[in-house]
Amino acid sequence: MVTIAVDAMGGDKAPGPEVEGALRAAREFGHRVLLVGPKSEVEHELAKHGGKKSLPIEIVHASDRITMEDHAAKAARTKRESSMHVCARAVASGQADGFVSAGNTGACMAIAKMVLGKVPGVDRPALSGVFPTHKGTPVVVLDVGANVDCEPQMLAQFALMGEAYSRLVLKVARPRVGLLSIGEEEHKGNALTRDATPLLKSMVASFIGNVEGRDLYSGHADVIVCDGFVGNVALKVSEGLVDMIRGMLKESLQATITRKVGYLLARSAFTDFKKRVDYSEYGGAPLLGVKGVCIIRHGRSDANAMKNAVRVAADFASSNMNSRIEEELRDVVKV
Amino acid sequence: MVTIAVDAMGGDKAPGPEVEGALRAAREFGHRVLLVGPKSEVEHELAKHGGKKSLPIEIVHASDRITMEDHAAKAARTKRESSMHVCARAVASGQADGFVSAGNTGACMAIAKMVLGKVPGVDRPALSGVFPTHKGTPVVVLDVGANVDCEPQMLAQFALMGEAYSRLVLKVARPRVGLLSIGEEEHKGNALTRDATPLLKSMVASFIGNVEGRDLYSGHADVIVCDGFVGNVALKVSEGLVDMIRGMLKESLQATITRKVGYLLARSAFTDFKKRVDYSEYGGAPLLGVKGVCIIRHGRSDANAMKNAVRVAADFASSNMNSRIEEELRDVVKV
Repeated sequence: MVTIAVDAMGGDKAPGPEVEGALRAAREFGHRVLLVGPKSEVEHELAKHGGKKSLPIEIVHASDRITMEDHAAKAARTKRESSMHVCARAVASGQADGFVSAGNTGACMAIAKMVLGKVPGVDRPALSGVFPTHKGTPVVVLDVGANVDCEPQMLAQFALMGEAYSRLVLKVARPRVGLLSIGEEEHKGNALTRDATPLLKSMVASFIGNVEGRDLYSGHADVIVCDGFVGNVALKVSEGLVDMIRGMLKESLQATITRKVGYLLARSAFTDFKKRVDYSEYGGAPLLGVKGVCIIRHGRSDANAMKNAVRVAADFASSNMNSRIEEELRDVVKV
Repeated sequence: MVTIAVDAMGGDKAPGPEVEGALRAAREFGHRVLLVGPKSEVEHELAKHGGKKSLPIEIVHASDRITMEDHAAKAARTKRESSMHVCARAVASGQADGFVSAGNTGACMAIAKMVLGKVPGVDRPALSGVFPTHKGTPVVVLDVGANVDCEPQMLAQFALMGEAYSRLVLKVARPRVGLLSIGEEEHKGNALTRDATPLLKSMVASFIGNVEGRDLYSGHADVIVCDGFVGNVALKVSEGLVDMIRGMLKESLQATITRKVGYLLARSAFTDFKKRVDYSEYGGAPLLGVKGVCIIRHGRSDANAMKNAVRVAADFASSNMNSRIEEELRDVVKV
């Protein structure tokens, strides 16, 4: 049985969604979940759901918590008894096979790197986002915010890590890897993409060259690598646009009686649509390149999102991703 | 009467949308339009619409054309008799007040810089995109692809140009200028945004600090500045996402009879929605910082898009934008 530690104090509405998500994950997937946070607070939240019943859930006490307002690096260094730190230690000690947090992203990355360490051959762990595409297969985009101002070899390592993730966890048979740029032709791009191209060609067998912003959703590539600044902008532009479109459709559909009736009749289509573009259906952002499994979620994550994050963490742990990444990097870069 | 030159051979389906767009612009807005391209070909296209009738439309002959496959800088240097070159010369000579092209973006920028020259004080002209927002007021984003690998002072100049465009053409009373980054706090960003921040603070009175990707659609800022690589990715991610969402909704709504009926009843809402997210309703991307008016459109632009581009070019020409930009830069940077 896979054991996943859940930072019960991470998200904006913690511990509600965390506890409910853990209960659902244990019930639906049969995973063992360690709920990490102040014992009494977590117990109180569990009691709202009638307790853990016979589900494989345990509470691991952590007296402190890291907030969204905390300075990431400082909190990572000083708040050793925070739920996030205790989660990471549970993974490092083998008590858990992975951990999930919807807390301060910067602090979570810093703690994961500090407590778990990096996979040999990786210069910088990368945060990867998983995006839906029109064709159905999700695309892995990395880095989406852990590393700004990247060096070319970092992009090549991101490519190898993303390829392994797509293949081993998302089960894409032969993932095509693209470099995010501003035109498909090789000479189009900035200094970073032009310098990274020869490295990607020599290190990544399934490299397909430059892809453009629209390819995040076209399904033209299975893995897209970019600098963390660009990736983060792409992720947040998408979130903002989906919010705007939802709002616009809602307003339009409430404008007249005929449209309202139409909306009622077409409602299940909207539910489908929301589900497909809703990031909570996806499993959150895995931090690739650390020795251990760490899945980071948005602070606004609901119980469904937390449930899915536990599922992804378990898939990740079962896939033996880290040693595979290590092997691949060893083969290619002769670590 | 404002005169706008239209590159009749620019877009993917030229000269169809160009000629129809010119006819509509002349009819609806009363602008004089010069249709620039091979005389016989343009005449033939005009004849399909029953000729120009009494509309203020003239054909200006250009024997050559620049294609999407042409190398931008080379085509700009060598294809002097292309419709794009002839358009730019019409503006430089005062024959036209501005020009519009849906052709090769790189070539168009190169020709505009070469033939029209830069506004004093501007290091690099910037391509600006105009995005719809949830609040209704459009946001100006620049640069969206003319300049990758920017220096900090270029971002400050983009801010001043974008602010002037928002105020003078889009009629926003006091445009708020944001710097696109990966977090609202000042220390969050990459080397470029951190170095640009003090410059923006000292040069741009209405600078509001960092904004995030989601603010492209939130209406939180009226002008957003960024490196052309990042801006281009943001633009194309948005296009890709809108296409995917349209496709998904269409599929979902065709899945069952009830939904189909719902769709029919709600159809006008979808038309509204398409109109609001459709870039063809917006006027294309003005190239700011060249001495003259140049509006660049997507190669896929339809007649409606071309019509709106003529309108924007005319508004731009009437606003005396370039001398205002020159004044502002002189005031701030002591050119």
